[in-house]
Amino acid sequence: YPYNLDFDYGALAQLQHFSINNLGDPFIESNYGVHSRQFEVGVLDWFARLWEIEKNDYWGYITNCGTEGNLHGILVGREVFPDGILYASRESHYSVFKAARMYRMECVKVDTLISGEIDCADFRAKLLANKGKPAIINVNIGTTVKGAVDDLDLVIQTLEGCGFSRDRFYIHCDGALFGLMMPFVKRAPKVSFKKPIGSVSVSGHKFVGCPMPCGVQITRMEHVNALSSNVEYLASRDATIMGSRNGHAPIFLWYTLNRKGYNGFAKEVQKCLRNAHYLKDQLRAAGIGAMLNELSSTVVFERPRDEDFVRRWQLACEGNIAHVVVMPSVSIEKLDVFLNELVKNRSTWYQEQQPPCIAADIGKENCACPLHK
Amino acid sequence: YPYNLDFDYGALAQLQHFSINNLGDPFIESNYGVHSRQFEVGVLDWFARLWEIEKNDYWGYITNCGTEGNLHGILVGREVFPDGILYASRESHYSVFKAARMYRMECVKVDTLISGEIDCADFRAKLLANKGKPAIINVNIGTTVKGAVDDLDLVIQTLEGCGFSRDRFYIHCDGALFGLMMPFVKRAPKVSFKKPIGSVSVSGHKFVGCPMPCGVQITRMEHVNALSSNVEYLASRDATIMGSRNGHAPIFLWYTLNRKGYNGFAKEVQKCLRNAHYLKDQLRAAGIGAMLNELSSTVVFERPRDEDFVRRWQLACEGNIAHVVVMPSVSIEKLDVFLNELVKNRSTWYQEQQPPCIAADIGKENCACPLHK
Repeated sequence: YPYNLDFDYGALAQLQHFSINNLGDPFIESNYGVHSRQFEVGVLDWFARLWEIEKNDYWGYITNCGTEGNLHGILVGREVFPDGILYASRESHYSVFKAARMYRMECVKVDTLISGEIDCADFRAKLLANKGKPAIINVNIGTTVKGAVDDLDLVIQTLEGCGFSRDRFYIHCDGALFGLMMPFVKRAPKVSFKKPIGSVSVSGHKFVGCPMPCGVQITRMEHVNALSSNVEYLASRDATIMGSRNGHAPIFLWYTLNRKGYNGFAKEVQKCLRNAHYLKDQLRAAGIGAMLNELSSTVVFERPRDEDFVRRWQLACEGNIAHVVVMPSVSIEKLDVFLNELVKNRSTWYQEQQPPCIAADIGKENCACPLHK
Repeated sequence: YPYNLDFDYGALAQLQHFSINNLGDPFIESNYGVHSRQFEVGVLDWFARLWEIEKNDYWGYITNCGTEGNLHGILVGREVFPDGILYASRESHYSVFKAARMYRMECVKVDTLISGEIDCADFRAKLLANKGKPAIINVNIGTTVKGAVDDLDLVIQTLEGCGFSRDRFYIHCDGALFGLMMPFVKRAPKVSFKKPIGSVSVSGHKFVGCPMPCGVQITRMEHVNALSSNVEYLASRDATIMGSRNGHAPIFLWYTLNRKGYNGFAKEVQKCLRNAHYLKDQLRAAGIGAMLNELSSTVVFERPRDEDFVRRWQLACEGNIAHVVVMPSVSIEKLDVFLNELVKNRSTWYQEQQPPCIAADIGKENCACPLHK
């Protein structure tokens, strides 16, 4: 991942002289003194406003990574519906399936469209086959490989259309990378607690650029009360997955959110989307199969044939495709260097052979193989 | 906790300019480039030597905290024995009981002795009542509140005495704080993979003094193969609890282990034990009930009556007792300031009233109430 590293390190690096540890519930004062819980709560309030939930109605914490957010959200869902079935699209992050195994939950994988979005026709069929049990659904706000955004409204419609009333389903939104970008994208469907969702998580070290892995998890207060138990020696409450939590991360997040503000993020998101479109268009112009989901800055394209090239550019690959996640630190100049190198190398890879067909991965209209171009 | 902060920050603080992220399995090269896996493996090798397991026979990783180590160790145990019962003493860390709930495991709480150690008579009775199912045991190498070290050899004897052969039990050693100190304590029972144990975890931010929460988890290679699944887009394997992991922590740990070495740690452990004895003796000399387990640097004593005093000294309290964990950064001078302040304040707390009896918590011989002194 091309991270977004432009902190004011002069001041913030000094923080490393202190061991800062957030233990237990961020909203309950505990007896451990060197913490950053005021910053943590400040960051959580910011996200609560973004996702439209009142201060007294939410609970949350700053996690160690996106996986912890998913583990927490799905655990809350299971505690709300102990016999619920977990539904998640095949292109969900692997931590979702890990959670199902850890928590001993029945898990139903739902098919995806070519775009990577959940296929709500298949979702409907699988819901109807399991009407007897409540549904716990992982909704992807940007899948890992294709950056596909599941249609939250259609997921809710499908549930209600299959006879699942609001007290019979729980939705966790995995916003890993894109949960923080989407609010700034025009026409994007809104992630909001005004809709019947139970929790949302995002990563803090991707788009926000926090230099240590971290994430934000927000859920409804009513749900977390069922989950938590009191820990006397901490004078706190145990509602988190992890115990000790990195105390520097909330300070970095708080600083960035306040320095950039909504407008700063909106500008960066626009830049990412613009540059992603540029990359996709240039790939296609060079005769290389490529796809870019409308709401995403993740460009999916034909997997480069040379593993050295893949390693040098740190491309994440799956089957016949690779992807580039265009973050604020990725400039047009950098994309041009990448494109030139790819095009130059590629001309040597396919002298005697044809480039592969990747229509099954990105659709016929995006494929540039001899058959589809 | 009085942490042990004496890194060479001049050089190491520079690391904060880089976003370092360890994804997936530390022993498998992945496609994400900015990592510190060489350091991670170096640290793991150090602990593998300490706990006597061959390089090719172990698997492990650097966790985000002690809780993650327990969550991992107990999950490995459950995957080895899916219908196993989890046994843990009442004074085990709360993350152990959280794991049982998360993983939907049957959990049997075992009584403790006054010292805080597991009561193997009660353990025996509970094992015999559940002979039909394999046993997964959490053994405490230093409990959270009293610093009590469960007798690993007696636990193994009890298991074998109850007819549990080695293919019917799994032992996870929670070494949170003391797992790293005990190897340097004379007469301490040894934690070693030459004994039939399955996993050991320790915290890295306590005795080692890493400035961000972290821990080390080591298990047997044969066990982790059952747990893991491959993650193609990372070109790695998913055998950890968390996804992205802090890449700075392994560098800090590696640096400290190499700079201090075995001899450095041995000296610091001796200092901690000496100072803990000093604190306990001074408390008793001042007529204050206090206990110190033989293998521990955790001094347990009468809970101060004034909550301001508790907060100012950040004392962790449970019921009628409080504790001080004597770490290398705690000097005799600091202990004297604490003792003087406690004795001065306490004389005002008990002018008209008698100090409470805490014999039930720390034993008659350690209590200093009017009845027992």
